[in-house]
Amino acid sequence: MYIYGIHPVEELLLTVPEKVLKIFCEDPSAAKFGEVRALAEAKALRFEHASADELERIAEGGNHQGVVVHTTPFEYDSLASILQVNANERRGCVLVLDQIQDPQNLGAIIRSAVALGVTGIIIPKRRAAGVTPAVVRASAGQALKVRVALVTNIAQTLEALKKEGWWTVGAAAGEKSTDIWKIDFDMKTALVMGSEHQGLRRLVAEKCDFQARIPMAAGVDSLNVASAASIMLYEMRRQWAAL
Amino acid sequence: MYIYGIHPVEELLLTVPEKVLKIFCEDPSAAKFGEVRALAEAKALRFEHASADELERIAEGGNHQGVVVHTTPFEYDSLASILQVNANERRGCVLVLDQIQDPQNLGAIIRSAVALGVTGIIIPKRRAAGVTPAVVRASAGQALKVRVALVTNIAQTLEALKKEGWWTVGAAAGEKSTDIWKIDFDMKTALVMGSEHQGLRRLVAEKCDFQARIPMAAGVDSLNVASAASIMLYEMRRQWAAL
Repeated sequence: MYIYGIHPVEELLLTVPEKVLKIFCEDPSAAKFGEVRALAEAKALRFEHASADELERIAEGGNHQGVVVHTTPFEYDSLASILQVNANERRGCVLVLDQIQDPQNLGAIIRSAVALGVTGIIIPKRRAAGVTPAVVRASAGQALKVRVALVTNIAQTLEALKKEGWWTVGAAAGEKSTDIWKIDFDMKTALVMGSEHQGLRRLVAEKCDFQARIPMAAGVDSLNVASAASIMLYEMRRQWAAL
Repeated sequence: MYIYGIHPVEELLLTVPEKVLKIFCEDPSAAKFGEVRALAEAKALRFEHASADELERIAEGGNHQGVVVHTTPFEYDSLASILQVNANERRGCVLVLDQIQDPQNLGAIIRSAVALGVTGIIIPKRRAAGVTPAVVRASAGQALKVRVALVTNIAQTLEALKKEGWWTVGAAAGEKSTDIWKIDFDMKTALVMGSEHQGLRRLVAEKCDFQARIPMAAGVDSLNVASAASIMLYEMRRQWAAL
């Protein structure tokens, strides 16, 4: 995977230096690469010279700002291996994303999910963004170290999770939903977020043990899905800290 | 102000139809404008024909998808008029954004801030994104209805807020910061967020009565500023609901 741009490269070197194979740069001595140089040195990573034309080609025309990093490829995990992590624990959290389309949103969600301690992320194989370089950029590198499983059918996956002792909490803004702070997160939780514009699909919502909402000001329809996911994961973490 | 693209236009018509002056469209009868048509009809807004060339020019080359909305211009408020809103109340919240650069982030923050009930937003005149069409798009239209004040100096503004009985809470990831859930928000709160990459500047941090952080998983450095703002505003709102 190739990630370009000064700030994204700095974040990768800071967050997941072990995933960096090569740093391609036209002129590493340039002042603007001071932070990149320092981070690369600290990890004993060397620069490889690449001309502007070569960088342009590697970055497929993106705004590389003179630096591109070659990382290990992203490897998906299996659902079983994600669930295994919390097998003997009372609590845990996986995030189920049903048809998130926008790489920016997926990256932002992953960044928050890692920060707030989810065990893994479950996304459908079809009609959803996968872990692409744009997602890695938007996640500030965190996407390279999170466990992600691809599944064929989200509704069936929720059924499987429930059989394994997980409780499913769907984010739904409707009147019937419970205020998120009233959900007791002292359990293994699969938090389910719907797509940007449609929210949870009916068949998916029906598989959720709870439907939860973030109370909002009058006249406001919805939050951005990444903000909503961040808030719900925070609420879970807040409760866990108090237990 | 001109806002383009099918989904942003739908959001504007849904959220702030009163701000919409005209809807320019090449062919309103096209199937893809079904939702736009329904929303426009419900608000008795009419379409004005514009050729593809005209739309292209109005949208300044942006991906307009055949529809552009002309809105009322954004008007900034004064700091005094924002503070006046909560003058006789025990609680309230203003959001102080110190040098947020990215319109996407500013828009996402505004969307959450409106949803979670802030009274107004305070941004510096210089070195920060203002309320542009890109911000309105990213805020799903909410930026057109929030109170925003431009100030010359954030540190001085915090001093002024404190004199008026507001408490200042700075978002800072450091060890010395208090976990956000331990801050008692039963007060008039000015929540202060720093810039995307530098965080709070020292002079600004020193003016804060409290420094608060969102506890994160080991090895994670920071959240996206829009996610962090959303979480902190949610925590405030959660506490208020329990009072």
